[in-house]
Amino acid sequence: MNLILASTSTVYGKGYLVYLKETLEELYKNVEEIIFIPFARPGGISHDEYTAKAKEGLAFLNKKVVGLHEKKDKIAALQNAEGIFTGGGNTFLLVHQLYEHNLMQELKSSLLSGTPYLGTSAGSNICGLSMKTTNDMPIIYPPSFETMGIIPFNLNVHYLDPDPNSTHQGETRETRIKEFQNLNKIPVVGLREGSWLKIIKDDIILEGPLKARIFKSGEKAYEIDAKTSLKNLA
Amino acid sequence: MNLILASTSTVYGKGYLVYLKETLEELYKNVEEIIFIPFARPGGISHDEYTAKAKEGLAFLNKKVVGLHEKKDKIAALQNAEGIFTGGGNTFLLVHQLYEHNLMQELKSSLLSGTPYLGTSAGSNICGLSMKTTNDMPIIYPPSFETMGIIPFNLNVHYLDPDPNSTHQGETRETRIKEFQNLNKIPVVGLREGSWLKIIKDDIILEGPLKARIFKSGEKAYEIDAKTSLKNLA
Repeated sequence: MNLILASTSTVYGKGYLVYLKETLEELYKNVEEIIFIPFARPGGISHDEYTAKAKEGLAFLNKKVVGLHEKKDKIAALQNAEGIFTGGGNTFLLVHQLYEHNLMQELKSSLLSGTPYLGTSAGSNICGLSMKTTNDMPIIYPPSFETMGIIPFNLNVHYLDPDPNSTHQGETRETRIKEFQNLNKIPVVGLREGSWLKIIKDDIILEGPLKARIFKSGEKAYEIDAKTSLKNLA
Repeated sequence: MNLILASTSTVYGKGYLVYLKETLEELYKNVEEIIFIPFARPGGISHDEYTAKAKEGLAFLNKKVVGLHEKKDKIAALQNAEGIFTGGGNTFLLVHQLYEHNLMQELKSSLLSGTPYLGTSAGSNICGLSMKTTNDMPIIYPPSFETMGIIPFNLNVHYLDPDPNSTHQGETRETRIKEFQNLNKIPVVGLREGSWLKIIKDDIILEGPLKARIFKSGEKAYEIDAKTSLKNLA
């Protein structure tokens, strides 16, 4: 396998995908054409608009970028893909669309066979065991919350530490993840903005400048340093 | 109908339900026993623990408070209830449990027939047309996102204004609601902590010291003052 699963497409103060430039040059080095999956549609933009944004963001690579929505035979497009990028947005919508087009299993097969893949935010969430630790609003009812399980745990992307000065009574991210683990025993990696997981062959490495926060059912949450392997987390 | 739908059970700096004291004295004035629905289980606490918390919070009323989970025949318990209170926590879990016990329709019938009802947070969400504007994490897969539709729109509880100083790249609440309305044409009321809706007969009034934010599909969001009627919002 050969995946980059990023918490976010954009870090504060930099343009779209800019902080991942070198990582993506390496990921897609042998790829001519990247299939972009625009289904998560952030802010409700169209598939065409989102694909145009991805093209612009990846322009530094000098590769062809084609939206999956433009392909008549989407299953064949994933089977034959040289490289794939799934952008962020709403995870419920992304998962709904992948099931609707019968693509969840095809995408998984393609990734397991080694197709280079970039996921950002929602596009990373779908590589976990389920989408049950997304932060997104349930704007559409998908046929299942199960996702690809490329990694043997779940992600919480855009992970946010509790704000000690907050007067807000809504649940903190950590409380929400603990509620999840009260019903589901699988581990969760809280991936802060600026962090990504690099999955190469069967190893999973935390990359980027930040620590990540690990939640295991029934245990106190703890921090891990960049370059730690998460292969044996489950 | 006779309902109080609160954004939150607790406002900053005050104890559980304290800011609603006078409102609840009025709501439950002719009630001897309140049925408490503990299914949303905030932080994963047990039904018994949550019911004990509700009892303590409502102690000033000098009423009997009984957890619905203690009732063998839950349908009869709702049919015969003199008053009902559904506490907050996880909306996915609450909706899952209501469907699992075949209680969604029974609860709706009870409320339509005039049973005094308090909902806080998740307990308010289920009175909207759907749970598709909850902030909660999808920790369990419910059989549907449709809810009771006691009010002809959706709520976004614990509504939070965007923080102008934030460097976080996750979606703002307003962006999430706009993503919802890209797929769903129904209005959404952003109910800030400290606000509640009072539903009396067929009127729906914004109560509490704060304005609320109204989102209509395809229109710019706007503020309404306390005491505004929302009866004709849909």
